[in-house]
Amino acid sequence: MRYGIVGTGALGGFYGGMLANSGADVHFLFRSDYDKVRDNGLRVDSVLGDFTISPAKINAYKSTTGMPECDVVLVCLKTVNNHHLKSLLPPLLGKNTVVIMVQNGLGMEADLAKDFPGMAIAGGMAFICSTKVGDGHIRHADFGELTIGSHTATDPAVLEKVSVDMNNAGIPVRLTDDLNDFRWRKLVWNIPYNGMTVIMDAGTDELMKEPHMRQLINELMLEVIAAGNVCGAHIREDFATKMMDYTDSMRPYKPSMKVDFDAGRMIEIGYIYSNPIRFAAEKGFSMKLTSVMERQLKFLSSKYLSK
Amino acid sequence: MRYGIVGTGALGGFYGGMLANSGADVHFLFRSDYDKVRDNGLRVDSVLGDFTISPAKINAYKSTTGMPECDVVLVCLKTVNNHHLKSLLPPLLGKNTVVIMVQNGLGMEADLAKDFPGMAIAGGMAFICSTKVGDGHIRHADFGELTIGSHTATDPAVLEKVSVDMNNAGIPVRLTDDLNDFRWRKLVWNIPYNGMTVIMDAGTDELMKEPHMRQLINELMLEVIAAGNVCGAHIREDFATKMMDYTDSMRPYKPSMKVDFDAGRMIEIGYIYSNPIRFAAEKGFSMKLTSVMERQLKFLSSKYLSK
Repeated sequence: MRYGIVGTGALGGFYGGMLANSGADVHFLFRSDYDKVRDNGLRVDSVLGDFTISPAKINAYKSTTGMPECDVVLVCLKTVNNHHLKSLLPPLLGKNTVVIMVQNGLGMEADLAKDFPGMAIAGGMAFICSTKVGDGHIRHADFGELTIGSHTATDPAVLEKVSVDMNNAGIPVRLTDDLNDFRWRKLVWNIPYNGMTVIMDAGTDELMKEPHMRQLINELMLEVIAAGNVCGAHIREDFATKMMDYTDSMRPYKPSMKVDFDAGRMIEIGYIYSNPIRFAAEKGFSMKLTSVMERQLKFLSSKYLSK
Repeated sequence: MRYGIVGTGALGGFYGGMLANSGADVHFLFRSDYDKVRDNGLRVDSVLGDFTISPAKINAYKSTTGMPECDVVLVCLKTVNNHHLKSLLPPLLGKNTVVIMVQNGLGMEADLAKDFPGMAIAGGMAFICSTKVGDGHIRHADFGELTIGSHTATDPAVLEKVSVDMNNAGIPVRLTDDLNDFRWRKLVWNIPYNGMTVIMDAGTDELMKEPHMRQLINELMLEVIAAGNVCGAHIREDFATKMMDYTDSMRPYKPSMKVDFDAGRMIEIGYIYSNPIRFAAEKGFSMKLTSVMERQLKFLSSKYLSK
């Protein structure tokens, strides 16, 4: 199996790096990191063990032109860059290529399918604390499980092979036959924390130790669960308690949205906030708490971030 | 009529100063400003005309002990200091004294009545842009109308006399027989702007020019109107449009809550947010948007403000 990694940041660098480190055939697309990686390789500092894919061993590319056809493409871009996929992906695509959108939010697979009708598309959700701390340098602090589910990838054998390769690389993979359900589960965490760490300028640990904020986060989770269930998910309310416990167990953490915001990069409001709000509204459910955050984030984005 | 001003800040300094400047008998309680006022008087820079009440003419006190009994006491403290009223007020109180709570929020009069049963209490709402810019130095930038309504002040003649004195001093006064309705109307402005300027670290003009934030502010206004009407007010929905227009017409402005927050002073969450939310909830109405702001403000208060 040949893997292409489109977007070698916190997620692509970790998952692709782990695969390559285990001996898999992995081809990485870099942008600004390319020169650094050519000189020093891809460095991953991980709680599972530090490693570097050396310049001699890494298949690094500056553009997808020249990249080989891949059996599996992991799209690990920020969703704010998804409009580039239409031009980025074609060199990587063979007849049976599966494209896995390892991203947060809702509706990315359907949007991609509009540009690539008939293509096998899946979604991936990473439960992980991982950060790009410098060019070609990833720090993996905690967790790491990847959940994968099909959107239009009808051959189950490919995703099972991915699961085997990932397991061999030390990454726990869960395959789900209900991508929508899992995407909403992921949002139960992402909607409260990604945005609130930006709005409040605080880490997850700070948010969790203030009782009123803690209560608000819990209510946001319950709102996301209710919205998800209206949209076809099947999430029990005590999943909110699990996510609160999960967060309490984490090391102090700044989600990628907070890291991006602090660095002046665009943040993923559309797929993580606007789409869930819109999909729920189409089913008659109003995500009122979430919509406050959405508008606050749009204000901050407009005030502080370059387009 | 003898007036006592308890809390000579942005509001007390302006209204008391205007009264004193017109020749009324006004006695001011100062705290940290006292020494400066003893030396330089009370300075009011106003769009209606600048003036200073000179050290020779001002009746300034450092404590209410020694202040004379007053016919009317204007309480212009921040509500976070209302717990001091029980000990502050007694020297000022005669048999027929009316205490007017010139404050923002809901429930202050009822709380005061618990400590002073049988006392004549009224509420005052200032539609004004006024700021304390330094010790004994007030800047009045815009507007100024004061609306006064009785809580337990059963003699209408006193409030009418206040109205005449204020008018003579150049302050437009409106008397209302529905204090609750007017308190809610004031909240239609205060709830969105006081808190959002703090949470977003932005002036009213910045909030108003970003379309998503503008929409959120409008929805917050409609939520406050709906909550108020459930609690006995009679506010039409187009009052929100009026408040939006009013804000658009204002000079760029930081509400007192934002000024207080930036100076590290306690902010008035209880009477402006928690009480309206609680009163509406008691009538079965959930102020969801407002409750997000309440919790965000409590988080910021806990993180940044000393108790």
